[in-house]
Amino acid sequence: MTAPRTVSRLTLYVRLLNDLLAEGAEFVHSHELARRARVTAAQVRRDLMVLGAPGSPKRGYKCRRLLDELSLFFNHETSKPVALFGVGDLGRALLSYFKMRHSDLEIVAAFDIDPLKNGRVIHGCRCYPLDKLESIVQERGISVAIIAVPASAAQLIVDRLMLAGIKGIVNFAPTPLHVGPAVFLENLDVAMSLEKAAYFASKGMPKKKDTSL
Amino acid sequence: MTAPRTVSRLTLYVRLLNDLLAEGAEFVHSHELARRARVTAAQVRRDLMVLGAPGSPKRGYKCRRLLDELSLFFNHETSKPVALFGVGDLGRALLSYFKMRHSDLEIVAAFDIDPLKNGRVIHGCRCYPLDKLESIVQERGISVAIIAVPASAAQLIVDRLMLAGIKGIVNFAPTPLHVGPAVFLENLDVAMSLEKAAYFASKGMPKKKDTSL
Repeated sequence: MTAPRTVSRLTLYVRLLNDLLAEGAEFVHSHELARRARVTAAQVRRDLMVLGAPGSPKRGYKCRRLLDELSLFFNHETSKPVALFGVGDLGRALLSYFKMRHSDLEIVAAFDIDPLKNGRVIHGCRCYPLDKLESIVQERGISVAIIAVPASAAQLIVDRLMLAGIKGIVNFAPTPLHVGPAVFLENLDVAMSLEKAAYFASKGMPKKKDTSL
Repeated sequence: MTAPRTVSRLTLYVRLLNDLLAEGAEFVHSHELARRARVTAAQVRRDLMVLGAPGSPKRGYKCRRLLDELSLFFNHETSKPVALFGVGDLGRALLSYFKMRHSDLEIVAAFDIDPLKNGRVIHGCRCYPLDKLESIVQERGISVAIIAVPASAAQLIVDRLMLAGIKGIVNFAPTPLHVGPAVFLENLDVAMSLEKAAYFASKGMPKKKDTSL
């Protein structure tokens, strides 16, 4: 099983390899990929061993071949439907962002308690009332959800999502969520990150950075 | 020097203690704070030792007293001006969010390359052109910045911010940033988090969670 930090770096290599191809590069050395990813070349080589991608010491890795291996690893050919909960300012920003991205991850349904939003299409995505959660998750085969509702509403939605079979959650609500052992939870707490940055801006840097990928 | 993860948990305790006070609680036991924070009681007691806050084995910690100690620790009495770069959908969502929060962290200036936004006030915050970066950062005593510009524009802004004396950065741009050793960098990469959640949703959970605070 690949570790979460390795998966993070592999998603980053996908982006960087696409940049390199756009720049006309055919091959890339591990140290060049490392420079762009802000990690060590040894780290890049270790990560790419997971894929079993062959590299030549002289020319490096073939960009296209590496991208193909990464596509297989991430199963990029299969589109992955995502549900969004909460269509406030942040929810709208996320819809707009993912609409532009054209990746295998697509927000196919948005949920909000505001009855004025029900049935509306916002940035190409249909909004539903919360009581449709179970049926839409099942119909659309959704296994990943983004939580962008207020803190007080988050756990209740997550409890229903787990019963509905959701396996991955990205949480923007500023509250700790309880999830079962089979669910992957990633917290993106904007206020907490800013408080942390402000704390270390005033007190000086911590001894060891834990902000690396 | 307190570790970043400890600082994250301490900011969480501030929120939870405010909730407890709002619920009318005068005292709180470490195990109750731990339950709400989704950590162990031993972890809570270790974290609070940093503050030197006394607790009674019978009644627990006094909520108000703990909050006062945490306020001192975070220097909450002093308002901390923050600059935002990029007033697109995400930038607007951040302005709206922090306007409602009423914390010591306040976004006092927003920057965007769009000349139509210059001089406008969005969610209570004035927008400036990028060439005002250095003068506004200095005038307003800004030491923390939020980066919400496209990936291609991020490093250039960060380079100027470091020269201008910025010490803390929260980065939403989907690109690795290079910062000096005296600058605290926190990356909130939405696409990467979602890709990670989708990966583990399809492959099953990693052996060891690294999503804890």
